[in-house]
Amino acid sequence: MTAPLFKKIVIFGAGLIGGSFALALRKANAVGEVVGFGRSETTLQQAMQLGIIDRIGQDAAAEVGDADLILLATPVGQMAEIMARIAPHLGALTLITDGGSTKSDVVAAARANLGIRIAQFVPAHPIAGAEKSGAGAALADLYQGKKVVLTPLPENSAESVARVRRAWELCGAVVSELTPQQHDAVFAAVSHLPHLLSFALVHDLAQRDNRDLLLSFAASGFRDFTRIAASSPEMWRDICLANRDALLDELGLYMEELGALHEALAEADAARLEQTFRTARELRAGWTEQ
Amino acid sequence: MTAPLFKKIVIFGAGLIGGSFALALRKANAVGEVVGFGRSETTLQQAMQLGIIDRIGQDAAAEVGDADLILLATPVGQMAEIMARIAPHLGALTLITDGGSTKSDVVAAARANLGIRIAQFVPAHPIAGAEKSGAGAALADLYQGKKVVLTPLPENSAESVARVRRAWELCGAVVSELTPQQHDAVFAAVSHLPHLLSFALVHDLAQRDNRDLLLSFAASGFRDFTRIAASSPEMWRDICLANRDALLDELGLYMEELGALHEALAEADAARLEQTFRTARELRAGWTEQ
Repeated sequence: MTAPLFKKIVIFGAGLIGGSFALALRKANAVGEVVGFGRSETTLQQAMQLGIIDRIGQDAAAEVGDADLILLATPVGQMAEIMARIAPHLGALTLITDGGSTKSDVVAAARANLGIRIAQFVPAHPIAGAEKSGAGAALADLYQGKKVVLTPLPENSAESVARVRRAWELCGAVVSELTPQQHDAVFAAVSHLPHLLSFALVHDLAQRDNRDLLLSFAASGFRDFTRIAASSPEMWRDICLANRDALLDELGLYMEELGALHEALAEADAARLEQTFRTARELRAGWTEQ
Repeated sequence: MTAPLFKKIVIFGAGLIGGSFALALRKANAVGEVVGFGRSETTLQQAMQLGIIDRIGQDAAAEVGDADLILLATPVGQMAEIMARIAPHLGALTLITDGGSTKSDVVAAARANLGIRIAQFVPAHPIAGAEKSGAGAALADLYQGKKVVLTPLPENSAESVARVRRAWELCGAVVSELTPQQHDAVFAAVSHLPHLLSFALVHDLAQRDNRDLLLSFAASGFRDFTRIAASSPEMWRDICLANRDALLDELGLYMEELGALHEALAEADAARLEQTFRTARELRAGWTEQ
């Protein structure tokens, strides 16, 4: 038996993202002990019962000094406070990564709160469907074949980036790298905007007196279009606010697009409607998730 | 051996909708002969090879007189011309149904073109995913467990409605009834609008110089949200135009919804964003396709 790559990891947030990370590293025999912190005692107890964590942490200051790796898997809005709390107690070799869906804001929080330990933080965004949440939804193979985007900082050593990359790869993920700003612009377009649009459609229907009749005739197109409207309201509130500027840009462009379609429809402009749909179909039919 | 319920059926359009109808009735041993008409000789030849039709029709006037059932499964925009062509030659017992996704316009076309034969037309809308098209996509079980909405006319006899209902039920469908106007308002909200929104998002991205980078990071949320953007441009052009008034109403309401979300986001109104998402999540999480 060889020693595991990470003797001790500490996860803040033992839900879908953090729990799946811990389960995956366990499955890969890459971790010794997992200590969990979180706001909800119930979630932590459940994470214990499910074998996600070995212990519920009591004192973060005492636990992070000898940790090899810390994962911040709470909502992004809670990360700054955790960073401030752990920064003075981090070991010299302790690395930190995170599971936040936005990166510019997390990096800003890290710069403000980690101080001289900033080089030890290698930001990450695991792209795994998160319409379920909680420890009970955690899966050892959640990240299998899924993308994880690292947004390394200039301060990170190559060795630190490689070690955090290795952790995510051990979870089964396909890891790539972008700058935090590139990351946020890309995800505003292909993830955050679609979520907002899906929430908006279902919210619109929820206001109707005849919503039950409407929903009784909704079929597979509606089902797929609105699947992401069952995502966590709290998480998506945070994501939207955290990536507000890029998302406002995307939403503005989309509203212009809808304005043009409204005009084409009002004018019964068949050619313009068909050309719009054809362009979309060609791009979408030629795309496959990688 | 008993005689099949329909000795002869004639389908106009041997693609996904018409082809699947024929295959399903064959599988149910409910049909003797299937004759196919269509604009594309290639599609008709393929439908022959796939066992969807027995013969390619040459002369509609000669074929519809002794048909038990005619299915109009072309794009809605082509139905008026077909109705005008077959009306003078319909047998007294020949029933007609259709597979159009909109109903008010099809009923208007029928009233204008079927004349005294209007009582023989029982309009239908089979709700089956149609992002693929063509004879090659036809499946005997496409309608299995799927909804079909009949929008019977005051002129229809109860017996005619029951017989057309029976045909769709033999395809495995769950049949319900609405008025044409109810139908179109319902489907503008739960089907036509989502298709328009999905096409719009992909069209928006298709205009970007960095679309390949964007799409390389698109994941399951994007995949499901945009699945319907791979639908037939020609069919959806026709549907949008056919149901233009109801769809313009829905699009207008949705643009107001987006305007409100844009405002909430610009003002960083966390509570309003969360409440919108929460209302949507509750409705969507409590809904299951019936």
